[in-house]
Amino acid sequence: MKILPNKTITDVSGFLASGIHSGIRKSGKKDLAVIYSEKEAIAAAALTTNKVKAAPVLVTMQNLKSESIQAIVVNSGVANACTGAKGIENAKQMVEQVADCLHISNEKVLVSSTGLIGTQLPMEKVLPGIEKACSKLSHNGGKDAAEAILTTDTFKKTIAVEVELGGKPVTISGIAKGSGMIHPNMATMLSFIMTNVKMSKSLLNQLFKESVVDSYNMISVDGDSSTNDMAIILANGMAENPLLDENSEDISKFKEALDFVNKELAKMIAKDGEGASKWMEVSLYHAPSKESARVFARSVVSSNLVKAAIFGSDANWGRIMCALGYADADCDLSKVDIFFGNKEDKIQVVKNGIGLLFDENKVKEILDQSFVNIIIDLKSGEYQAKAWGCDLTYEYVKISGNYRK
Amino acid sequence: MKILPNKTITDVSGFLASGIHSGIRKSGKKDLAVIYSEKEAIAAAALTTNKVKAAPVLVTMQNLKSESIQAIVVNSGVANACTGAKGIENAKQMVEQVADCLHISNEKVLVSSTGLIGTQLPMEKVLPGIEKACSKLSHNGGKDAAEAILTTDTFKKTIAVEVELGGKPVTISGIAKGSGMIHPNMATMLSFIMTNVKMSKSLLNQLFKESVVDSYNMISVDGDSSTNDMAIILANGMAENPLLDENSEDISKFKEALDFVNKELAKMIAKDGEGASKWMEVSLYHAPSKESARVFARSVVSSNLVKAAIFGSDANWGRIMCALGYADADCDLSKVDIFFGNKEDKIQVVKNGIGLLFDENKVKEILDQSFVNIIIDLKSGEYQAKAWGCDLTYEYVKISGNYRK
Repeated sequence: MKILPNKTITDVSGFLASGIHSGIRKSGKKDLAVIYSEKEAIAAAALTTNKVKAAPVLVTMQNLKSESIQAIVVNSGVANACTGAKGIENAKQMVEQVADCLHISNEKVLVSSTGLIGTQLPMEKVLPGIEKACSKLSHNGGKDAAEAILTTDTFKKTIAVEVELGGKPVTISGIAKGSGMIHPNMATMLSFIMTNVKMSKSLLNQLFKESVVDSYNMISVDGDSSTNDMAIILANGMAENPLLDENSEDISKFKEALDFVNKELAKMIAKDGEGASKWMEVSLYHAPSKESARVFARSVVSSNLVKAAIFGSDANWGRIMCALGYADADCDLSKVDIFFGNKEDKIQVVKNGIGLLFDENKVKEILDQSFVNIIIDLKSGEYQAKAWGCDLTYEYVKISGNYRK
Repeated sequence: MKILPNKTITDVSGFLASGIHSGIRKSGKKDLAVIYSEKEAIAAAALTTNKVKAAPVLVTMQNLKSESIQAIVVNSGVANACTGAKGIENAKQMVEQVADCLHISNEKVLVSSTGLIGTQLPMEKVLPGIEKACSKLSHNGGKDAAEAILTTDTFKKTIAVEVELGGKPVTISGIAKGSGMIHPNMATMLSFIMTNVKMSKSLLNQLFKESVVDSYNMISVDGDSSTNDMAIILANGMAENPLLDENSEDISKFKEALDFVNKELAKMIAKDGEGASKWMEVSLYHAPSKESARVFARSVVSSNLVKAAIFGSDANWGRIMCALGYADADCDLSKVDIFFGNKEDKIQVVKNGIGLLFDENKVKEILDQSFVNIIIDLKSGEYQAKAWGCDLTYEYVKISGNYRK
């Protein structure tokens, strides 16, 4: 696998995109993106588990039943959630407008929205906006699309990799919209992955589902997602590699590349948490099961108290113990070791569940970095997981407390 | 039932208390309390469900098995959690010292701690401190005890009520130590209730357990508690009312008074959340079950985004919908109505899951108050619940990020 620097989704053969300002956002920022696949693509998706689902989520759920997908339309600024029958109608109109402009059938179009809940979309701006975005589709439009899906994000999130399958170079690239909100279980998260791999739909489904669990779900707690969360992958087969299916030997090579793309985007989302001054990785080792490893890691990275301690560069490991203790997973926590720092250069602060004397200044140096690694060794099994998050800052409270203003 | 203004636990016949500075806290603040019952009392308790239990919790669990209890010793400043065998030894020594000073047996003494996790208690200060506190026990010491159990709390939490049972006045009074940390599922919560009621132990157990569920557990999420959480009730029988047991007609009268005491203390804890500028009550009506009512109400009151919106006086009801949607309970949320304000003077912002046009200025007036009431009507059943919390402020991040400094 190799990383393709500065490349994005429109560098994947067969994909065009655009991102424009339609007028939904009053700030003048780009607020509408269209992604188009020249060939019919197969799709897989992970949609929000929140019981309150935004209108675009409901419409996209429906259209994901079609055999193939050719376009995705995304707007920022208005979430089109809690908007009733009119909201559904508007999401459907967005789909129809894209289908009309691109001369494809409605069911080949997916729709996604992010922004304020409870406001109706200004369709008099959205519909001409879609027309404009469709007319601007190009092989250079990926970065504009990456920009148009953002809300309070401070940087565009995009990544591209190449992997060789059966002698053919296959590209995977994604763009994402980050945690508008710092708290993992409320992040509105959008991610759109394009690949030219030739693959069976069932395998694409399986691999994408698995990949989401260890990437986006490790920043956004499963079952605790926002009204609009959506991760979608389209595969158009244009790499012309030998068809990848459940019996192919190359599965792991593709899976590794797909996992990399999703994890990198997930990390960017964590890094760009609203108001964040630092971001952190929690590496959890030797858990009794894969799922418990995830639950423990997520519990630590989601703790307000841990987040605030990281903000204050305070080596308050008791809060990590506390977050492990109330996590909904079983393990004997009297064996846990905790370290701050990276694998090569770390300082142990807890041994067998009990605090050690440690050099506070050295740990403060580690915690003063913009990236903080917390290593937890449960010494109770063979499984590991990583979770990502950011600190809790004054700035977060300020942004989050005045979101609508 | 009548409220007894300015009365506290030592106004319940037969109870003495004291609160002193032993030297655990460097600030010179009171840090050690002893509560003593002249007569042997029966006890009931709710202890933390965190898998990481502090040493005093483990020792108290053991001593709660005895037939009767006569004393509780509590220190603030050091939680004696994650302190290993030495921590257990120290908690036991605290018990022994109280027993020695008061000439009672060890198993009649309960022990409780709150403060920083991972530090050993300075026993050279604690043991003389206990001796001093025991020598100062008095019928006026309740308020000193209420003060000595505090950490970052800004006011003493105490309440007392009287109820007549079989012609005899029965008193119930409690003191509590609040949410050092604003986030409900991490609040370290201590509560000590004294009553002179004459009651069977099984009934006391049952009523206290029920009462905790709708009071302290509605600010501190069940199963998500800190290493040191503890709520204890002692009943010494000195009111000489006819014995209350499962067959008594007066149960509901006593229960009402007990619930009042616990809920008032729970509300004080919410009000005094770390760095809080406002506190809020979430009143949830017409849920399909009692438990789902609790889960939905707690989900809203625990949401960082709702808390930050309340801080910013932002009528961002979408965040309330979102928190209802990811709550782990079932209900058709397309029927939900949401109001801000109190029952008599409220403004509806959501009807049947969809936002209404409302007077933003009027809602802002409501949200600018120091107490904010959020009313949620699920219109899906007969059950209701209330939950309490506070806003998320700059001040919280500041205090929480520098807790150890």
